[in-house]
Amino acid sequence: MSSTTVDGRRARGDRTRRAVLDRAGQEPSVRGLDALSLGGLAAAAPVNKSGIAGLFGSKEKLQLATVERAWEVYAEAVVEPARAAPAGLPRLLALVESWIAYSRGRIFEGGCFFRAVSVEFDGRRGPVRDAILAAQRDWDSYLRHHVEVAVADGGLPAGTDPDQVVFEVTAMLEAANDRSLLYGDDGVYERAERAIRAVLGRS
Amino acid sequence: MSSTTVDGRRARGDRTRRAVLDRAGQEPSVRGLDALSLGGLAAAAPVNKSGIAGLFGSKEKLQLATVERAWEVYAEAVVEPARAAPAGLPRLLALVESWIAYSRGRIFEGGCFFRAVSVEFDGRRGPVRDAILAAQRDWDSYLRHHVEVAVADGGLPAGTDPDQVVFEVTAMLEAANDRSLLYGDDGVYERAERAIRAVLGRS
Repeated sequence: MSSTTVDGRRARGDRTRRAVLDRAGQEPSVRGLDALSLGGLAAAAPVNKSGIAGLFGSKEKLQLATVERAWEVYAEAVVEPARAAPAGLPRLLALVESWIAYSRGRIFEGGCFFRAVSVEFDGRRGPVRDAILAAQRDWDSYLRHHVEVAVADGGLPAGTDPDQVVFEVTAMLEAANDRSLLYGDDGVYERAERAIRAVLGRS
Repeated sequence: MSSTTVDGRRARGDRTRRAVLDRAGQEPSVRGLDALSLGGLAAAAPVNKSGIAGLFGSKEKLQLATVERAWEVYAEAVVEPARAAPAGLPRLLALVESWIAYSRGRIFEGGCFFRAVSVEFDGRRGPVRDAILAAQRDWDSYLRHHVEVAVADGGLPAGTDPDQVVFEVTAMLEAANDRSLLYGDDGVYERAERAIRAVLGRS
């Protein structure tokens, strides 16, 4: 078998894997990661159930790959658009704006992917919970870094507790996501922005 | 059949129903309402699967009865202990305290029942979602009433937006619940209290 053939097969496998994962990322935001099934995905993908099993190996591996792919989508939708803003307070404000656009725009049809799956897995143990936890910690650390930059450059007052600011900002964003879904009312995003402006102004 | 016998059977049925529901309330806080099964409950209850099916009729009716029972538990754990405090700001502060004790004390083993099931059902339609939504709206209205009393009696400044205060206070409580579960760190409850004191002080 020529290496071109092998490469062609690998490329097709990668494309299929990605297509399945993009579909797989939508489901858990609505019905949870537990509801993911190899058979269910096969119905919506260009390969059958055993093809999907061959690509991922097991349901747990499929869940882990789905979390990983969702994290890429999150970074692309939330982190990337904010990079144009200078580090520190302007970046924080840009991240809040892009987070709201990501949640409100239903990049994942059931709202923020990580909201849905972190509440689903927060009472469990195992590699899927660990992957979700690692993603949340990465996001918190990224925000904390920019709060620290803001404190250092005077964007936020000296003596600000960065972890407290991160807690409050993420609490407001998450509440807006959850309430917009449950209540079917987008006005909560303005409430979150108003609250976050107060937090960043008074800290 | 004497009415005493019928009453005895009804009383036994009510007790069994309640015992099953108390068990049923614990599960969804960890694994969600979808994971509730008549068979699973039968394993932990004094009746078999067909007995449970007879008591509740269907999985959806069992889910609805579970939400209703969880709401009674919530009222008992959160609303009742705060009744000693005068209406308005003191009541709000007492409700925050009892909510934190309810979440932190794991009255439901997976943290707040309504956090878990509202995120599970927020993307769906149907009577279970409606019941969860009604419970959330009741809780919001109760808090809003006490914010309004506080504004009227000077506990909070004139011009305070009650819906904004309710949004911010519940956002902090819910974030503390979710993070204490995911991160396994109880320090978030102090962060929530600190943030809520700031909200109620500055509003």
